[in-house]
Amino acid sequence: KVLYVLTQLCGLTMIVLVGTWIGQHYGGLGGSSNPKLEFNWHPLFMTIGFIYLYGNSILVYRGFRTTRKKTLKLTHAGIHMAAFVLTVIALKTVFDSHNLADPPIPNMYSLHSWLGLSAVIIFCLQYAAGFMAFLVPGMRENYKIALMPLHIYFGLFGFVLAIASAVMGLTEKAIFSLGANYSTLPAAGVLANIIGVLYVIFGALVVYLATE
Amino acid sequence: KVLYVLTQLCGLTMIVLVGTWIGQHYGGLGGSSNPKLEFNWHPLFMTIGFIYLYGNSILVYRGFRTTRKKTLKLTHAGIHMAAFVLTVIALKTVFDSHNLADPPIPNMYSLHSWLGLSAVIIFCLQYAAGFMAFLVPGMRENYKIALMPLHIYFGLFGFVLAIASAVMGLTEKAIFSLGANYSTLPAAGVLANIIGVLYVIFGALVVYLATE
Ligand code: HEM
Ligand code: HEM
Ligand code: HEM
Ligand code: HEM
Ligand SMILES: O=C1O[C@H]([C@@H](O)CO)C(O)=C1O
Repeated sequence: KVLYVLTQLCGLTMIVLVGTWIGQHYGGLGGSSNPKLEFNWHPLFMTIGFIYLYGNSILVYRGFRTTRKKTLKLTHAGIHMAAFVLTVIALKTVFDSHNLADPPIPNMYSLHSWLGLSAVIIFCLQYAAGFMAFLVPGMRENYKIALMPLHIYFGLFGFVLAIASAVMGLTEKAIFSLGANYSTLPAAGVLANIIGVLYVIFGALVVYLATE
Repeated sequence: KVLYVLTQLCGLTMIVLVGTWIGQHYGGLGGSSNPKLEFNWHPLFMTIGFIYLYGNSILVYRGFRTTRKKTLKLTHAGIHMAAFVLTVIALKTVFDSHNLADPPIPNMYSLHSWLGLSAVIIFCLQYAAGFMAFLVPGMRENYKIALMPLHIYFGLFGFVLAIASAVMGLTEKAIFSLGANYSTLPAAGVLANIIGVLYVIFGALVVYLATE
C-alpha cells in the first residue's frame, strides 16, 4: 500500500519533470510546422503512455483486489489501449521530426530506436495475445493457465525494455543538445539525469509490486 | 537446457563483438599512457565481468542442479567475486581515461555513470548481504527464508540495471565517436547496435531462466 502510493508519486513527478524539462530547456510543444518543437511530444507522450500508463495497467490487479475480475480485465485492457494510443502519437511526432526536418534526418539508425520500436512491437503482440486468450470467451481453461506465466514474463519484459529505451533516449537528447557541455552538468543535464533515475525507480517499484 | 546453451552462445558472441568493435574501430587496448586506448578496457571488462559473469553466476543454481548445494554456493560467490574484480578494473580504466586526459574530463556527470555506479553499489551491498546471510554459518533458518526473495529481487534488479547502463554506454560512445554520422549507420554504429541487442537478449534469457 505504501509502496503503491510511492509508485504513483514517483510516476507523477516523472511526468511533471519531463514537462518542465521540455518546457524550460527545449522550447515547449509545437505542431508539424516546427519539427524541433514537434519532437518534444515524443518524450512527453512516451513517459505518460509507454511508461506511466503501461506500469499502472500492470498494477491494476494488485491495487484493486476487491473489484470484480471482469471489471479489472476491462480496466487492464483499457489502460493498455490508452497507453498504446499515446505511444503511437509519440512515434508519429518523432518520425515527423526526422522526416520534416530540413535536411531530413534518417530514421531507425540508433540503438535507442531499435530497442524502443522492439518494445512497442512486443507490446502490440502481447495485447493481441492477451485479448484473445483472456478477454474473448472460449479459450480453454488449461490454455489460459499455461499462457499466464508467458503473459506476465513478456508483459514485464516489454515494460523494462521501454524503460531501458527511455534512459537511452534521455542520454541521446542530453548529448545532442548539450554536447561537451553535458559534462559541466548544466540544469538541463541534471534534470535529464534525475528523470532517468525516476524512470528506474518507477520501473523497479512496478516490477516489485507485480511479482511480490 | 536449449535456452541455457543459447544464453551462453549469446553471451560469448557479445564478448567477441565488443572485442571486435574496440579493436577494429577504436584502436584496441592501451595502458594509462594513452587514456583514449585505456578507455577501451571499460566496455570490454564491463561486458565480461558485469554482464557475462554476473549473469552466469545467477544461473549457477539452474545449470547444475545435481551438484552439492555447498559447492554451488561457493561457485556462486566465486563467480560474483570474479565479476566484481573485472568491474573494478573497468571502473578504474574509465576514471583514468577522464582524469589523465588533457584537458581532464569531469567525472560522474552522465545518466550512464549515475545508473552504472548505482548498479555497482547495489551489487556490492548484495554481495555483503548474501555472504553474511547464506555463507557464514549461524544465520537462523527463518531469516534465510525471509531474505531469499529480497536476495533474488535485488540480484536481478542490479543485473537488469547493469544492462540498461551498458546500452546507454554504447549509445554515448557511438554518438561521441560518430557524431551526426551515426545516422548514416557506418560499421561502428551497426556493430554497437547489434551488441546492444545481444545484451538485451542475454539479459532476457538470464532473467527468464532464473525465474521460470
Ligand atoms: C520509452 C519509450 C520510447 C520509445 C519506444 C522510443 C522510440 C523511438 C523511436 C522508434 C525513435 C526513432 C524515430 C526515427 O527514427 O524517426 C526514437 C527517436 C528518438 N527518441 Fe525515443 N523513444 C522513447 C523514449 C524517449 C525519451 C524519453 C526520449 C528523451 C528525450 C527520447 C529521445 C529520442 C531522440 C532524441 C530520438 C531521435 C534520435 C534517434 O533516432 O535515436 N525517446 N525514439
Ligand atoms: C500489451 C498489453 C498487455 C500487457 C503488457 C500485459 C501485462 C500483464 C502483466 C505484467 C500481468 C501481471 C500482473 C500481476 O501479476 O499483477 C498481467 C496480468 C493479466 N493480464 Fe495482461 N497485459 C496486457 C494485455 C492484456 C489483455 C488485452 C488482457 C485481456 C483481458 C489481459 C489479461 C490479463 C489477465 C487476466 C491477467 C492476470 C491477472 C491475475 O489473475 O493476476 N492482459 N498482464
Ligand atoms: C554495464 C556496465 C557499465 C557500468 C557499470 C559503467 C559505469 C560507468 C561509470 C561509473 C562511468 C563514469 C566514469 C567517470 O565519470 O570518470 C562510465 C563512463 C563511461 N562509460 Fe560506462 N559503464 C558500463 C558499461 C559501458 C559500456 C558497455 C560502454 C560502451 C562503450 C560504456 C561507455 C562509457 C563512456 C563512453 C563513458 C564516458 C562518458 C560518461 O562519463 O558517461 N560503458 N561508465
Ligand atoms: C552480488 C552478489 C550476488 C548476486 C547479484 C546474487 C544474486 C542471486 C540471484 C539472482 C539468485 C537467484 C537465482 C535463482 O533463483 O536461480 C541467487 C540465489 C542465491 N544466492 Fe546469491 N547473489 C549474490 C551473492 C551471493 C552470496 C555471496 C551468497 C552466499 C553464498 C549467495 C547465496 C545464494 C543462495 C543460497 C541462493 C539460493 C539458491 C537456491 O536455493 O535457489 N548469493 N543469488
Ligand atoms: O542458505 C540457504 O538459504 C536458502 C534457504 O534456506 C532460504 O530460502 C537456501 O536455499 C540455502 O541454501
